[in-house]
Amino acid sequence: MAKKITTKTAVVATPNAERIKKRDSATQQKILTLAMEIAKRSLAGNEPIVRIPMRTKSNTIWNKKRGILEMGDAAAERPLFDLKTAKQFMQTMLHAGTIKDLINAQKTSSLRGVFYKAKHTVAGTKENTFDTQDESDPILEDLEVALGALREELHVFAENRGSMVGNITVVDRGDEIDCRRMGSGGYALPSIVEPDIIQFKKCEAKFVLHVEKGTVWNRFNEDRFWETHNCILTHGAGQPPRGCRRLLQRLNSELNLPIICVLDNDPWGHYIYSVIKQGSISLAFESSRLAIPSAKFLGIRAKDFRECGLDDAVKIDLTDNDIKRANEIAAYPWFEHHKGWQREIDGMLRNGFKMEVESLITKDISYVTDTYVPQRLKAKDWLE
Amino acid sequence: MAKKITTKTAVVATPNAERIKKRDSATQQKILTLAMEIAKRSLAGNEPIVRIPMRTKSNTIWNKKRGILEMGDAAAERPLFDLKTAKQFMQTMLHAGTIKDLINAQKTSSLRGVFYKAKHTVAGTKENTFDTQDESDPILEDLEVALGALREELHVFAENRGSMVGNITVVDRGDEIDCRRMGSGGYALPSIVEPDIIQFKKCEAKFVLHVEKGTVWNRFNEDRFWETHNCILTHGAGQPPRGCRRLLQRLNSELNLPIICVLDNDPWGHYIYSVIKQGSISLAFESSRLAIPSAKFLGIRAKDFRECGLDDAVKIDLTDNDIKRANEIAAYPWFEHHKGWQREIDGMLRNGFKMEVESLITKDISYVTDTYVPQRLKAKDWLE
Repeated sequence: MAKKITTKTAVVATPNAERIKKRDSATQQKILTLAMEIAKRSLAGNEPIVRIPMRTKSNTIWNKKRGILEMGDAAAERPLFDLKTAKQFMQTMLHAGTIKDLINAQKTSSLRGVFYKAKHTVAGTKENTFDTQDESDPILEDLEVALGALREELHVFAENRGSMVGNITVVDRGDEIDCRRMGSGGYALPSIVEPDIIQFKKCEAKFVLHVEKGTVWNRFNEDRFWETHNCILTHGAGQPPRGCRRLLQRLNSELNLPIICVLDNDPWGHYIYSVIKQGSISLAFESSRLAIPSAKFLGIRAKDFRECGLDDAVKIDLTDNDIKRANEIAAYPWFEHHKGWQREIDGMLRNGFKMEVESLITKDISYVTDTYVPQRLKAKDWLE
Repeated sequence: MAKKITTKTAVVATPNAERIKKRDSATQQKILTLAMEIAKRSLAGNEPIVRIPMRTKSNTIWNKKRGILEMGDAAAERPLFDLKTAKQFMQTMLHAGTIKDLINAQKTSSLRGVFYKAKHTVAGTKENTFDTQDESDPILEDLEVALGALREELHVFAENRGSMVGNITVVDRGDEIDCRRMGSGGYALPSIVEPDIIQFKKCEAKFVLHVEKGTVWNRFNEDRFWETHNCILTHGAGQPPRGCRRLLQRLNSELNLPIICVLDNDPWGHYIYSVIKQGSISLAFESSRLAIPSAKFLGIRAKDFRECGLDDAVKIDLTDNDIKRANEIAAYPWFEHHKGWQREIDGMLRNGFKMEVESLITKDISYVTDTYVPQRLKAKDWLE
């Protein structure tokens, strides 16, 4: 164990530790500034107020040139002396305090942990500071935008989800992880993947193939697709969590790797792609760090039923809700004038059914890895 | 890449490949025997019948001596010439065929993949072989018990869930994975962890600490608990999937490592423990491979609210359903005469509230790793 500790000490001594220190003291400074402003106003006899940029649809702007969603300038004031906002004001201060403690202790916490840390019964009352986590998570997002610091910079993590294999070596908290040698399981993606935690080392891969589900990822990994096609293989267990999206964005922006998505032919698959590509309304303030405007949608495509000669049994009827969602997605500003996507969504609606990636198994166990994806890659047959 | 291929070839040439071959041909033989019996009966002018052992509560036996749930001898006949069972007979044959193909191709498939593989419209009718996966999964379980072959031996996998770090090196499909060097993400647990896929190599760890959720696992990993306490750290993202349970069982039975669980103080946590320890009714035929009768429940305990001096805010009221579930669990034969567990469940009911592992953060960010678990480990204060 002595050796282990030495290794760790060595890691702490790298310039990376300096980077963490710098980032953390910048975040601490932001929290301090927030606190000082409130203290100053109070001492001057004025009402304490926090100003929170608005994370609403109306304050979300589609930046056509950059190809991402951005947050507008609108902000809401959260005064202390207002019955409507007093509780939220207090909650904002509590979470800011927890974050300060986390950074001081050089620890991270889960969203649920932060909730518990702040949850208590206000002395002399029967009122809780927080009742459920549903109240707590948005307050943390408020703090992210108010401070201009990302959740990761606030030392808060979400669920870990997704895994990775392929022709790349990453360094994670000082440990070198060779993703070419990760067996059938793979490297489990952490929730915080900022450059001070995860660094990219040796990478021969020419692109990233991102698939929707772990079960599909298993098929590609078992067939060693990443080896035969020199790529990195990731999945996000459905809608990829922030950690997974951020990692894809870093692979794209820092290593210039195209991100190619294989998702289901249904509104949910289209929505996952839309979020990977342009960002989402609720996290629009994060888009420049999360969105990948050049991400490609390789399939499953509406045309595939005919083009691949699939059996009727792969069809899953569209529900009324699917049709509603499809029309909403077609009306997104970034899809609205995109002929390819209008055709794609229209094709699905005219089909009257949706299809999953797994349905390709009806052709052959490895049709998806041996034929479908290689053909589409070669022909550059994708939507973007 | 040439080097990679050489490495892989080397792996294929190990005795392990022999083991896989042997296992697979045994499974093939079982499928063939099933098919031959049906063919023989048919050719002799008798009705084809499949005999399926019953996976019901009434056919589940609590083996007190072994401390696990077992399947009894009852079986149901599934004749072809019966409107009630004809469809299931056909479905059973279809899945047996798919499994034969999978083994021949030396590939594995997901539960969903197997469903799709068999799903088609019966020629000349409007009848589908399968409509939903809900019909398909139980047929696969039927085949497991009918053939006496585990799902993994049938080359079928489920979702990957959970991760691992700690003082152990595993070999996964020939790749050596040092779980001491897996950063913040960890090694993602695969769905199939049989000895021909995963081997244990170097292990200094003295026990396994299994926690319920990934977020709690992060706290322990960040505090490098596995290093300071020389253990292995796992989580199963809630109710651990078969792959995770099987891995824990192998670590226990092959390496003699105690399995110590840190779960929530609620009926769900108690149930997770019960399944890890004794197995479940629906998978009773698998218990000797999955159950860990010596597994320990370290916490969270009903007494902890007072013993740890927790704040009222950590209390989550028990719902009517929680109370119902708690009483059901207390009546399980393996808890029914267990004084410790009767006291434990009774304590929770008398508290009137449940508590999550995360609630310990109200004491201190690392109270759970620095104080709570170490104290309980030292005092051997657990239920088993």
